[in-house]
Amino acid sequence: MAEQQKTRITVDIYGQQYAIVGTESSSHIRLVASIVDDKMREISAKNPTLDINKLAVLTAVNVVHEYIKLKEDYDRLLQQMKKEKDE
Amino acid sequence: MAEQQKTRITVDIYGQQYAIVGTESSSHIRLVASIVDDKMREISAKNPTLDINKLAVLTAVNVVHEYIKLKEDYDRLLQQMKKEKDE
Repeated sequence: MAEQQKTRITVDIYGQQYAIVGTESSSHIRLVASIVDDKMREISAKNPTLDINKLAVLTAVNVVHEYIKLKEDYDRLLQQMKKEKDE
Repeated sequence: MAEQQKTRITVDIYGQQYAIVGTESSSHIRLVASIVDDKMREISAKNPTLDINKLAVLTAVNVVHEYIKLKEDYDRLLQQMKKEKDE
């Protein structure tokens, strides 16, 4: 098996540096980091007393919630496609 | 506009308690919390020296990455459906 090229970049999220290693492109990793940064700032603006640790956990909670909603939409779309093919 | 019923529950994520308020069901909120908890433990097992704050941020990074991949699949499926309808 050929080894996949690994990307190593450093991104800034909520004022801290993170070294991210992955097989995705730098632009994908930067996009992901900027979405996390935006979400942390959005949640922090609504809850100014939260410490950074709880803020990061609540950001993860928020994103998992959105992931599950999207997954439900995806599954619904897939079901609909199958139904239309069977008709 | 009728006010939506709000759910208030306390969940445990990585040994800390979080009061979550939302319009989703308790079971949905518990599912989301357990996914975040699992992911934090998974990332922590691979990177035992990470502090909890960085661990939570990297968990959020991980989930946003998966969200974007799913969104791409979703958009592709939608495009395919439209194409099939036009044929």
